[in-house]
Amino acid sequence: MAAITPRSYDPCKFKALTFHDATPRFRDGSDTPRAYLERCLDTIAAREPVVQAFVVLNEAGARAAADASSARWKDGRPLSAIDGMPVAIKDLLETKDMPTQMGCEAYRGNFPRRDNAAVWALRQAGAVVLGKTVTAELGGTHPGPTTNPFDAACTPGGSSSGTAAAVGARMAPAGLGTQVGGSIIRPAGYCGNVALKPTMGAINRGERQTTSMSTTGVHAGCIEDMWQVAIEIARRAGGDPGRPGLFGPPTPPEATKPQRLIVLESAGWNALDAASRSAFEALLKNLERAGVTLLRRNDHTWVESLEQSIRRASDICNAITAWENRWYQSALIEQNPQGVSARLKAAVKRAEAMSQEDYRALLLERASALQCHAMLAPLADAIVMLSCPGPAPLWPGDVPGAPLVPRPTGDSVFNTPSSMLFAPAVTMPLLSVSGMPVGVQLMGQQHDDARITAMARWMLEAISPVVAS
Amino acid sequence: MAAITPRSYDPCKFKALTFHDATPRFRDGSDTPRAYLERCLDTIAAREPVVQAFVVLNEAGARAAADASSARWKDGRPLSAIDGMPVAIKDLLETKDMPTQMGCEAYRGNFPRRDNAAVWALRQAGAVVLGKTVTAELGGTHPGPTTNPFDAACTPGGSSSGTAAAVGARMAPAGLGTQVGGSIIRPAGYCGNVALKPTMGAINRGERQTTSMSTTGVHAGCIEDMWQVAIEIARRAGGDPGRPGLFGPPTPPEATKPQRLIVLESAGWNALDAASRSAFEALLKNLERAGVTLLRRNDHTWVESLEQSIRRASDICNAITAWENRWYQSALIEQNPQGVSARLKAAVKRAEAMSQEDYRALLLERASALQCHAMLAPLADAIVMLSCPGPAPLWPGDVPGAPLVPRPTGDSVFNTPSSMLFAPAVTMPLLSVSGMPVGVQLMGQQHDDARITAMARWMLEAISPVVAS
Repeated sequence: MAAITPRSYDPCKFKALTFHDATPRFRDGSDTPRAYLERCLDTIAAREPVVQAFVVLNEAGARAAADASSARWKDGRPLSAIDGMPVAIKDLLETKDMPTQMGCEAYRGNFPRRDNAAVWALRQAGAVVLGKTVTAELGGTHPGPTTNPFDAACTPGGSSSGTAAAVGARMAPAGLGTQVGGSIIRPAGYCGNVALKPTMGAINRGERQTTSMSTTGVHAGCIEDMWQVAIEIARRAGGDPGRPGLFGPPTPPEATKPQRLIVLESAGWNALDAASRSAFEALLKNLERAGVTLLRRNDHTWVESLEQSIRRASDICNAITAWENRWYQSALIEQNPQGVSARLKAAVKRAEAMSQEDYRALLLERASALQCHAMLAPLADAIVMLSCPGPAPLWPGDVPGAPLVPRPTGDSVFNTPSSMLFAPAVTMPLLSVSGMPVGVQLMGQQHDDARITAMARWMLEAISPVVAS
Repeated sequence: MAAITPRSYDPCKFKALTFHDATPRFRDGSDTPRAYLERCLDTIAAREPVVQAFVVLNEAGARAAADASSARWKDGRPLSAIDGMPVAIKDLLETKDMPTQMGCEAYRGNFPRRDNAAVWALRQAGAVVLGKTVTAELGGTHPGPTTNPFDAACTPGGSSSGTAAAVGARMAPAGLGTQVGGSIIRPAGYCGNVALKPTMGAINRGERQTTSMSTTGVHAGCIEDMWQVAIEIARRAGGDPGRPGLFGPPTPPEATKPQRLIVLESAGWNALDAASRSAFEALLKNLERAGVTLLRRNDHTWVESLEQSIRRASDICNAITAWENRWYQSALIEQNPQGVSARLKAAVKRAEAMSQEDYRALLLERASALQCHAMLAPLADAIVMLSCPGPAPLWPGDVPGAPLVPRPTGDSVFNTPSSMLFAPAVTMPLLSVSGMPVGVQLMGQQHDDARITAMARWMLEAISPVVAS
């Protein structure tokens, strides 16, 4: 294992770990899922001491599952295209064979011995459940120990910190994350992943149905694996109750060139560092050169209206989610005041200052924005925007006695729009700024998951990434 | 405690246990919540051996909570109008001080030590959490041991069997039930309760968000207590995530006479026994005599269309719910094949024969019916219909070796319409057939919970009940 040079990320040169291109060798016997797993475990052994992506590894269980998969491939009877794929599971999701501690002291040792719907579906498809990955506390903002695989001084993002870092560090070809504000797309953007935050409800959240805009999504090293994992889960566990589930083909959709894209600046635009902004503008130029028409806020009043309707996206997302978590987090603090972070307590306090009428007002604001976004469908094939406000920020840790740093896992300002709009988003590792990955995302109308995946595939194949210093 | 004469129920004579009319005496000190609780415990001691409403009683915890409430009333500082009210909690809902075993062998001893959102809100309001009540297995159809308080040879209905029976037996003035098909309104109808199945999402289901049309609702001895419990919960724990929560006044709405009611026959009409049907027709005559205009399927094509759109309500509800429970129930059976009933296994097998496209087709059918119901809003103030197909059926238990009886807790045919329409429903004990209670319900448009409560209050005050032999 070569040593990693910090801040040397180049999207043109970085070779992410992929799975779909390994399976032909499982068929002809020149490779096996067990050998694939051992390579992942070797990478983990080499990099985990610094990256700290995992809370728990189930090496024995993974080896047994990989051996069973090896036998199925040998017999020519794999359960699915992802049979034998090692997957990392965010530690918010229940697993029957590992504890689910949610990055929260109050849940230390919590072990309900059952599988989340998506985890269950992955096992049904033959995937190898490798371990539980670090999450920010209860999916919020209080960080775990994980570091960015491209510079250990930086955050990997959150709350899906461990999954994003594990995929970025080539420890696993794919993993599950969850997003309620910005918890999939932002860490994936910081860690050079491809990732899908699906349409709200498109992938069954299982036991985690308790907030109104959270989703379970997929981080991967490539778009083929990303889609395959998502569709294998959805075909087995469906969508959330009452939702029709993920629409799309049983194999990765073919690359499709968009004709027109809306460029969304969002509330983060003015706070963006100059290098990231100009890298993104250079990427937009590459899109135009490839024949894609771009539509920006000054080009059409409806685009400006959408910008306005998502202006407060972060405040809206944070307040809606805080209210929805209030009763259970309040009860948790009552029962175990030492079991949660000061950051979480502060969030609960803010939620306790809200009234039901405040919450109802936010629901209306969200519903209006959803309507505005839906009306834009005929204008363009999708929306293109940054996945994160520049490269992953430094994270030296809280200073004892000093006020809490407000966003230790980075700012979700580019992510809350898709969350509040229930919209699918795919992030692509198309930029490098100061030697660190910066993601660019496509966002679609609800149920356009396959469509934006097809367009993302085209962008990854046809558009040159931009490297800015 | 006088012995109970079976099959002697008369809605004009039966005195249900009530709470709102006891609190003035808490204020002047002539009664206390602790003394009220002791009267409940005396009733439980006398009747529980036959009724078997409770899985677990927390007498010590209840006494401590009642004493704390007594002190608050004495100080003139009750936490709410239901401070000190003993409440029975269906054993599907988590409680921090009692196990949550869900009527399912696989969950024997399950004790997550946290409160469901509604239970948490009840404690915040000062209510006395008395015990966990029997539920049919996992809220389905496989019955527990509870018997009907008006004839132990009959089912209390299900799945909220224990709560309905506890309220009917005067063991508690109120309790929580849950309904996904017919699990609140039907047992309440069989046991002489008043009950509210709220608008879908109007009362926070807490950890139980995993099916798309389940609700948490309230059983009570009178409409005042029913509303007060519902609104105290909703004001504290809100509605389901993403829903605006229960709308309505902080105290029971005043009685309001409806001008026009739609009479819904539903698919159960033709299977109805003659005595129940004529009792219901006699009640409708009483409504007309009081000046209420009734609109039936032959009076307006839109009413006939609604009848058509809910014709398959039971099949739709059962299949949607079976699909939504499929992944977790399949996983449960894999892990613990002996831990669930043959009835549940058969239901899972039916769900496993469904495809995602089958489920999607059912969602569309449900959405179309919802739209049809919404269009009827201008025609009438509400819908009136039976709560159950006649009195509670006999339930002698399964016969070993014989095929499973299909509906041991009764038929939900009069309940699945409000479930699939996400509509609020209030059942009233207005009929007696063969000496047993039969409920009549009002069903409203979504968010009409307070409106139908006001009309139900008027019916209970102004309309003579009907006793048929």
